[in-house]
Amino acid sequence: MKEKPIVGILLGSGSDLPVMKKAAEVLKEMEVPFEMDISSAHRLPDKTAEYARKARGRGIEVIIAGAGMAAHLAGVIAAHTTLPVIGVPLASGALNGEDALYSTVQMPPGIPVATVAVDGAKNSAYLACSILSIKYPELADRLEVFRENTRRSLNDQSEQLTRELLASNLISKQEYSSKS
Amino acid sequence: MKEKPIVGILLGSGSDLPVMKKAAEVLKEMEVPFEMDISSAHRLPDKTAEYARKARGRGIEVIIAGAGMAAHLAGVIAAHTTLPVIGVPLASGALNGEDALYSTVQMPPGIPVATVAVDGAKNSAYLACSILSIKYPELADRLEVFRENTRRSLNDQSEQLTRELLASNLISKQEYSSKS
Amino acid sequence: MKEKPIVGILLGSGSDLPVMKKAAEVLKEMEVPFEMDISSAHRLPDKTAEYARKARGRGIEVIIAGAGMAAHLAGVIAAHTTLPVIGVPLASGALNGEDALYSTVQMPPGIPVATVAVDGAKNSAYLACSILSIKYPELADRLEVFRENTRRSLNDQSEQLTRELLASNLISKQEYSSKS
Amino acid sequence: MKEKPIVGILLGSGSDLPVMKKAAEVLKEMEVPFEMDISSAHRLPDKTAEYARKARGRGIEVIIAGAGMAAHLAGVIAAHTTLPVIGVPLASGALNGEDALYSTVQMPPGIPVATVAVDGAKNSAYLACSILSIKYPELADRLEVFRENTRRSLNDQSEQLTRELLASNLISKQEYSSKS
Amino acid sequence: MKEKPIVGILLGSGSDLPVMKKAAEVLKEMEVPFEMDISSAHRLPDKTAEYARKARGRGIEVIIAGAGMAAHLAGVIAAHTTLPVIGVPLASGALNGEDALYSTVQMPPGIPVATVAVDGAKNSAYLACSILSIKYPELADRLEVFRENTRRSLNDQSEQLTRELLASNLISKQEYSSKS
Amino acid sequence: MKEKPIVGILLGSGSDLPVMKKAAEVLKEMEVPFEMDISSAHRLPDKTAEYARKARGRGIEVIIAGAGMAAHLAGVIAAHTTLPVIGVPLASGALNGEDALYSTVQMPPGIPVATVAVDGAKNSAYLACSILSIKYPELADRLEVFRENTRRSLNDQSEQLTRELLASNLISKQEYSSKS
Amino acid sequence: MKEKPIVGILLGSGSDLPVMKKAAEVLKEMEVPFEMDISSAHRLPDKTAEYARKARGRGIEVIIAGAGMAAHLAGVIAAHTTLPVIGVPLASGALNGEDALYSTVQMPPGIPVATVAVDGAKNSAYLACSILSIKYPELADRLEVFRENTRRSLNDQSEQLTRELLASNLISKQEYSSKS
Amino acid sequence: MKEKPIVGILLGSGSDLPVMKKAAEVLKEMEVPFEMDISSAHRLPDKTAEYARKARGRGIEVIIAGAGMAAHLAGVIAAHTTLPVIGVPLASGALNGEDALYSTVQMPPGIPVATVAVDGAKNSAYLACSILSIKYPELADRLEVFRENTRRSLNDQSEQLTRELLASNLISKQEYSSKS
Repeated sequence: MKEKPIVGILLGSGSDLPVMKKAAEVLKEMEVPFEMDISSAHRLPDKTAEYARKARGRGIEVIIAGAGMAAHLAGVIAAHTTLPVIGVPLASGALNGEDALYSTVQMPPGIPVATVAVDGAKNSAYLACSILSIKYPELADRLEVFRENTRRSLNDQSEQLTRELLASNLISKQEYSSKS
Repeated sequence: MKEKPIVGILLGSGSDLPVMKKAAEVLKEMEVPFEMDISSAHRLPDKTAEYARKARGRGIEVIIAGAGMAAHLAGVIAAHTTLPVIGVPLASGALNGEDALYSTVQMPPGIPVATVAVDGAKNSAYLACSILSIKYPELADRLEVFRENTRRSLNDQSEQLTRELLASNLISKQEYSSKS
Repeated sequence: MKEKPIVGILLGSGSDLPVMKKAAEVLKEMEVPFEMDISSAHRLPDKTAEYARKARGRGIEVIIAGAGMAAHLAGVIAAHTTLPVIGVPLASGALNGEDALYSTVQMPPGIPVATVAVDGAKNSAYLACSILSIKYPELADRLEVFRENTRRSLNDQSEQLTRELLASNLISKQEYSSKS
Repeated sequence: MKEKPIVGILLGSGSDLPVMKKAAEVLKEMEVPFEMDISSAHRLPDKTAEYARKARGRGIEVIIAGAGMAAHLAGVIAAHTTLPVIGVPLASGALNGEDALYSTVQMPPGIPVATVAVDGAKNSAYLACSILSIKYPELADRLEVFRENTRRSLNDQSEQLTRELLASNLISKQEYSSKS
Repeated sequence: MKEKPIVGILLGSGSDLPVMKKAAEVLKEMEVPFEMDISSAHRLPDKTAEYARKARGRGIEVIIAGAGMAAHLAGVIAAHTTLPVIGVPLASGALNGEDALYSTVQMPPGIPVATVAVDGAKNSAYLACSILSIKYPELADRLEVFRENTRRSLNDQSEQLTRELLASNLISKQEYSSKS
Repeated sequence: MKEKPIVGILLGSGSDLPVMKKAAEVLKEMEVPFEMDISSAHRLPDKTAEYARKARGRGIEVIIAGAGMAAHLAGVIAAHTTLPVIGVPLASGALNGEDALYSTVQMPPGIPVATVAVDGAKNSAYLACSILSIKYPELADRLEVFRENTRRSLNDQSEQLTRELLASNLISKQEYSSKS
Repeated sequence: MKEKPIVGILLGSGSDLPVMKKAAEVLKEMEVPFEMDISSAHRLPDKTAEYARKARGRGIEVIIAGAGMAAHLAGVIAAHTTLPVIGVPLASGALNGEDALYSTVQMPPGIPVATVAVDGAKNSAYLACSILSIKYPELADRLEVFRENTRRSLNDQSEQLTRELLASNLISKQEYSSKS
Repeated sequence: MKEKPIVGILLGSGSDLPVMKKAAEVLKEMEVPFEMDISSAHRLPDKTAEYARKARGRGIEVIIAGAGMAAHLAGVIAAHTTLPVIGVPLASGALNGEDALYSTVQMPPGIPVATVAVDGAKNSAYLACSILSIKYPELADRLEVFRENTRRSLNDQSEQLTRELLASNLISKQEYSSKS
């Protein structure tokens, strides 16, 4: 993989940072070089459009955009680039993300946005890794390792749960051994 | 009022014409010069932005934008002009306009879109007339005439209803006269 | 611009003040003279109707109405005036503003309400300024200044974000410089 | 019961007649004198308010109001009378009655609207009869007769269903007799 | 009015008391004798059915039922009496009252429930008073007094708002005097 | 398995037959003796309650109830029996089954209803078979056969799809052979 | 009943334990031997599938699965077993359980999931008991005892409510005695 | 690009073909070799899992999955591969695709699905092309050509609209020329 950023993360506003930082953390862990900036479909439309238009030329391969309410950021970016654009609908405001989800996912034919769950910042980064893995085989490996770690962590949780159930007498030893 | 267009109507796609034509018909009836064009927040973003940026200079005073699904058209226009922008969410697609409503109305602070009902093309034109009426007093008069006509038409409907109820024997003459 | 109020802000109840005060603050900042009062579509219907009927004659040019739940305030006002009426749906009650949004925006043909986002008090004031800007050119200028300030503030946020990312080691200097 | 109308049915527009006529038919069957008229919260606000204010004095005891979209009709009437007001949300427009339901039922403290199902015109009339039955005992009797008829009709449907199931061989005679 | 209870308030569970107590307080203030009990459509179906069947004979004239989630209480009562039944959907559980609203209001033809707003306990009592007012004229008077008090209280709020706006310099004295 | 009905299917009204008949057809195919009747939570509450109370004694082991709108039928039955009750929310009325889904599934603690998809009549029968399979092993076998048939049918569809794609030139033979 | 687990409870993640533990507590109270484990449709798909495939052979008779968001756990289990599968949609994430409800209940024909209320862990256990009661008559008895206890507890609440109402003077002794 | 399929399209059932065929048509037009098959998360879980597990090894680089209702297909595939998986929620059934949207997009951390609009089959293919374009530069070019064609087509629609408006006298020649 190159050393220059190949993923660009854009935030609709500074207040989106606490959620969107999780995307950055995942990319760092997966050793994917990225850049992160605040732009806005409505308040910095020209900067946003220019960012999108120049992204491929600058070496960016995937763009992640997180925004809330009438979340146009991912869509506006997708209008200006043919790179894959991942949209993260954010649960800000009274409608709690249903508005952002619809505004991000319901794109018209020809200009898709790859939408993840409301507040799904982590998954935007994992999806970026999946996309990049078709070009950078090491990422396929790292994703496998990550999934194996997830499985192990869930299995640990599983064992701890059994201990807790036994300790709290919700199940008896006999039931537990019947399980094995 | 000037003879050059002072209202601009933009459609997200040609298929929006059957609904959005009603806005044009209202403006024609109210004798408000307008122009109408197809643009698209996602498929013609530069044309849309340029239209918005130049609108005030060209004499446009209100912009109406109709779009469906993740309806960004009105928001993108509002990002590029300080003119009043009216958004008409259109009921295309499986979610039947709830997506377009959220995408149009839930704009972030600083970039408002004056949103009317789903498929409310007529009202976008009446709202444009109300806005223009603060500058062109003749429009206030025409709106009053229109409202008076509406009242008269509803009163005609009211009388016809009474005749129908009498004819179908749902109410009797006695009840009718007790009403007067 | 005149010195007498040209914008009227109505609240459905005193409890709406914390949200609706933001509209007043924006208008004050934009130097638009306004008045603000509590009325209610249901509990003070006659005062509300009379306010709407007399508004244009008193010099009011835009009316902003904020209300929650079955939010009829903006609609009732629009029924009694041909001035532009801006509705702010408020997120009070269990349904969290979706009820107020539908009650405000889904007006019948002929009586539009210019609806902004749920709890979008600020935007109701910015929309009022946009509307007034077609008559008072100084407002177009002030809106441009406001937008320029917004852009600058977002760019400041952008630079601060970069500093934070560097400080937290989420990105390295090398990546940052590749961005410029 | 008096011979003069004691129930007033108001329609938001002439297009609501096909649904709202069912309320009239129920009242006729229950021999409750009623009147029916078109009014509109937004297009005939003064007529609507005046109707509501004078209703009790004219002998009206229950008002039924049917309207669609941002359905304010019942609420506006309730604002002008202390009579019981029944609201029928109508499923017109793209949002299919969810807007009308919220606009009708979510009334603020002090001004209730007795709301029935979307398009529930029949039930508005049965509810009017229940309300009137606390004053006119003959209506309690007629409602009992109506309910008895409903039960009989459902039992007839039940028997016909059994015949159909036997005829189509979905169940056998043996199963049927086991049921008795 | 009689001295024996004429309104019955039923709660689906003891946890509904904090909201439903407001109905009791309104009835007490309006001097309407009432009774209040816990029943449950699902956990005490026989008690609920018997209560409904005997209510009219015992002198009850209106029944109020408050319940959350799949709120069947009002509907089950309405199935067993021809008295007017008022349903209060309560916002308990994850779906926040939308489930209770639908379960209460969407009744089939013949068995209406007069539904008020989610958590609208106060309005259930005011609606009961409106219903009773067709038989007990003193209640019409008390409702008028209550509404007059509401208007006065809102007007007081209005004056206090003006004082606050002046104190906070959001409006100037000049603007205020222009209002009068 | 016994020859007497062990599953009872109840319909809220005769108009629910076209959808609910599919449950009967599945049970017939699975050779599960059943009975089917029309009852109603609201219009025949006593018959419904009695049916539920006597069901276990009569040999019924699972009850399926289909109803629309404020669908209380399954819940009312569950209130009167400890047998497993399966609810089928039906998509009648303007809200298209979302009301019936909430009214069926959101039951309070202690009185569960096993809810299947909106209009999911077939699945109510398959679920009944799964439940019965813990007692009647032959049903586990028949369900396995049914699932095997489903798999075969889907595989047939898969082959037909390939033929159609080849015929329509959407894919070429080469791509097809690469798949095997 | 056997001493080995006959109910299996699966959690989508360890964070679901606080809600899902209530299912375990109910089963313990009803003396139904159960086992409980963490699995995941997406992160441990093979473990989940294997668990489901082997469950019947291991003596499990009912499976309960609790999961949030795009809650596929119950559906994936149902795809691999013909045992009855109960799904508990959990209210995690921004959409508050509506997503989990739809993902759990809207299963395609042939693969049903018996869905209970959002966060309805208790009811999943009571439903399991109802299902098991067709095979283990002692469970029918225990469910009857539980319901009788529920009735008694509600009647206690009812009496306490009367005492509180009397104490707070909301009702008078006279009204209370009229009730008996 | 290789000649062997690099995109795999999976359908949840044969009835999804009319919508999902549009994805195939777009890929054919973009000269992207693909394969298409019917599988099902619930009815063919093992085939689905095996397809996903073997896909990368077979040369597949992007998987598109279309399914309706509780649409688990894309999620189940994503659980078994680290390739990018695109989900198309289909609007089948009473809830009209809102269920499929939630079931597809609300995936838990670690297992993302790139979701497009309800019935957005075309966009699933365009998104696949965007993803592939980071590896196959010719696809970036083809996407640019496609977008240019879209722009041209919209501009043609724009000119035709002007001709229609002139022909129908909705705008006059003078207004039209003022536009240029």
